[in-house]
Amino acid sequence: MATYDLIVIGAGPVGENVADRAAQGGLSVAVVEQELVGGSCSFWACIPSKALLRSANALQHAHSVDGAKQAITGELDVPATLARRNWFVNDWQDGGDVDWLESVGIDLYRGHGRITGERRVLVNGSDGPSELEARHAVAVCTGSASLIPDIPGMVDARPWTNREATSAQHAPSSLAIFGGGAVAAELATAYAGFGTTVTVLARSGMLGRMEPFAGEAVERGLRALGVDIRTPVAVVGVERLADGVHLSLGDGTTIIAEELLVGAGRVPRTGDLGLESVGIKGGDWLDVDETLRVKGHDWLYAVGDANNRVLQTHQGKYQARAAGDVIAARAKGQHVDDLPWGTHVATADHAAVPHVVFSDPQVAVVGLTADQARKAGKRVRVVDYDLSSVSGAELHADGYAGQARMVVDEDREVVLGVTLVGREVAELLHAATIAVVGEVPIHRLWHAVPAFPTMSELWLRLLEGFGRPGPAIATTAR
Amino acid sequence: MATYDLIVIGAGPVGENVADRAAQGGLSVAVVEQELVGGSCSFWACIPSKALLRSANALQHAHSVDGAKQAITGELDVPATLARRNWFVNDWQDGGDVDWLESVGIDLYRGHGRITGERRVLVNGSDGPSELEARHAVAVCTGSASLIPDIPGMVDARPWTNREATSAQHAPSSLAIFGGGAVAAELATAYAGFGTTVTVLARSGMLGRMEPFAGEAVERGLRALGVDIRTPVAVVGVERLADGVHLSLGDGTTIIAEELLVGAGRVPRTGDLGLESVGIKGGDWLDVDETLRVKGHDWLYAVGDANNRVLQTHQGKYQARAAGDVIAARAKGQHVDDLPWGTHVATADHAAVPHVVFSDPQVAVVGLTADQARKAGKRVRVVDYDLSSVSGAELHADGYAGQARMVVDEDREVVLGVTLVGREVAELLHAATIAVVGEVPIHRLWHAVPAFPTMSELWLRLLEGFGRPGPAIATTAR
Repeated sequence: MATYDLIVIGAGPVGENVADRAAQGGLSVAVVEQELVGGSCSFWACIPSKALLRSANALQHAHSVDGAKQAITGELDVPATLARRNWFVNDWQDGGDVDWLESVGIDLYRGHGRITGERRVLVNGSDGPSELEARHAVAVCTGSASLIPDIPGMVDARPWTNREATSAQHAPSSLAIFGGGAVAAELATAYAGFGTTVTVLARSGMLGRMEPFAGEAVERGLRALGVDIRTPVAVVGVERLADGVHLSLGDGTTIIAEELLVGAGRVPRTGDLGLESVGIKGGDWLDVDETLRVKGHDWLYAVGDANNRVLQTHQGKYQARAAGDVIAARAKGQHVDDLPWGTHVATADHAAVPHVVFSDPQVAVVGLTADQARKAGKRVRVVDYDLSSVSGAELHADGYAGQARMVVDEDREVVLGVTLVGREVAELLHAATIAVVGEVPIHRLWHAVPAFPTMSELWLRLLEGFGRPGPAIATTAR
Repeated sequence: MATYDLIVIGAGPVGENVADRAAQGGLSVAVVEQELVGGSCSFWACIPSKALLRSANALQHAHSVDGAKQAITGELDVPATLARRNWFVNDWQDGGDVDWLESVGIDLYRGHGRITGERRVLVNGSDGPSELEARHAVAVCTGSASLIPDIPGMVDARPWTNREATSAQHAPSSLAIFGGGAVAAELATAYAGFGTTVTVLARSGMLGRMEPFAGEAVERGLRALGVDIRTPVAVVGVERLADGVHLSLGDGTTIIAEELLVGAGRVPRTGDLGLESVGIKGGDWLDVDETLRVKGHDWLYAVGDANNRVLQTHQGKYQARAAGDVIAARAKGQHVDDLPWGTHVATADHAAVPHVVFSDPQVAVVGLTADQARKAGKRVRVVDYDLSSVSGAELHADGYAGQARMVVDEDREVVLGVTLVGREVAELLHAATIAVVGEVPIHRLWHAVPAFPTMSELWLRLLEGFGRPGPAIATTAR
């Protein structure tokens, strides 16, 4: 039996960060991983999907600027794009991450980890079982898997999930995508760029959780790429036949595609973790407190997708920093800083989750939508601005189209949320995230000058749209 | 004699903004302009220079991504690029800005404005003189002009300034550039992209006021474009002959170029404004207080380059917002909010001036360099990070190279300055500007999560480099 201060189950980016922070805090740490160290993000999600998108994206930018477009006489090289993606995922070899674990003194156990009791984990590895004991904590960082909808024939049709779609070695001639979220938007964009005939089946429109104009812009963008978007739509049956996957729609029509990609939500990967041994029902999301500790179990943490707070890699890593730090602090008997925005809590999960959809146009959001803010009882003012009117955007691309929305708390005069839609808005988002997280008053934001002529000058237009709080407010703001 | 609450001399972006804010505050406003309404920025500086750069920039991006680069078989179309620039400057017609002035009820006087006494301006227009009187204030927004260095033969050689270089209708076969600042860096990049043989003569390196690694990276970038950079170098004589401009260097060698561009500093355009009539020496920069009012003259303001606080269009516009608002407030007898970061002062001029150099790589800076912070008596910690290690940068371009520096006040644990070098860093800057202006504590910045995989994840690396302030600090920060 090997003993560690902390055992982390799952060595994706979340598990790696929990382990890293705890190790930096002086704890001995083991991580358990049954697949590749580095996780879905590195191998089957964020990284390969962005690699699949970038080549066409770079080309489209050049296509949209007079003087540059004349130099482009060829087409996207799809095999080269796929090969570039293979490079980014290191041909699905995790040597780099394994080396990193070793370099920071974290032990890796390869195999399936199962909790066998309080602070005990059994790893079934290819070279036999390992019994591990944790002095202080076990962290479940097993992430999530694609939800396969309960539609007749769906499972038997062997649909692609994000894993197959991001690791494919050739582009199918046709692809049906079931879903209307980020996975659908990004992979429809990527495969349409490869020349695949893409049909999106979105039950209720694209990007339904965001400001309505975001999904509408992405729909327009996809249609401009030749994507057939069916929404609202019901899929009532699925069957894989010799000529492809047949999807029967509620209106009686049928769609046939070489492959079917399902991007319709996620389910927790907690079903085979032995949680029952400590009185927790497996297969559900794990309910945690603000320090990411499973309620009722002072030694057990669930970090990242597994706790269902926010299903985003970067936010899971954020939680992981708090969790790793608080596990170390508790182990050492140090002060736990669990007030809002403290070191040991994931306050931003509620207030400032960034999300970028790398479609064309891109969508970048942080914080609350207008609707969410109102439902949260805030007195809200919404400022909209046409991003195409910003000089930096006009210079960026001929015919640039984009839209921005800022949601302001009228009582506190702070930004609650920002939504940006347009080409290359991804890097504009972090300014909004800092404004929201920092609770920087609007009056002070007027002193944050955007460089001219950048797209960030949007900020000035949003502030002008809100108006400048007068001196009466100004002199009390700080 | 026409009477207004405010008379603004100079209708560049700065004058336009002073006029606009004052008009929004309820004042009657006249602006006087002897050239084009919209000013240098719109017609001979920011806008056309970025337009000249963008086409090659977009093409270089596509060139640097495998899968995309295979589609590019042609060259930059220089005539199309110049035509696109012509579109952005509206063929040097200012109708749009003139229409805007009219739409907001601001009167335009075309001609040379001269102060003839306290609150009096005489406009010599093409259709005769106009005598204007200001009830409350006159604002000098005449900007700056290129400094022509006092080198034998320089003036007679009729060098280009930014005006000629940004409005040229063809690319010369060869161009010598005297200077090492932003104008030199950007226009060397643009003309090298057009196939011009470019030689840069920089007395003491490139971008000397910034962190040293910024200028070094720009030098490397220019050399990669084929630019011949001579530094340190002395130019001792200039002569325009039939075969071009001959520049005699201090080492006895001669450079011959079809055109010579001078980008070696600025001089105030205050020499012919009648300032002597109110006891101010013309031709100098105008010394102003924090509300942009000329010291000793309660009715006279100098906004933008003319006051020599910061020679940047966006910062001049920022000053203009404060100045227009304070002129209106004083005219109406309202409270003047002139505490630091108040509505009526330009505090960011001292703490948070953003500056982007649109070279390849781009350079984006805000706030203090490490050296400036130390000289200001701050206890400073510097965090450096290799931007090429950020996944978002790797995805953006094959072989991405970049560097970032964050300068932190160790006593207050706030960011004092950030320098970013690399392709497409321009839009990353505003996050830093908000952090500096908002004085967001490092501890809180840890909660500002960058979306993965964007280049903005740099922030996480910078914070990790600084370290996470412990709970003792955390609990007192907010």
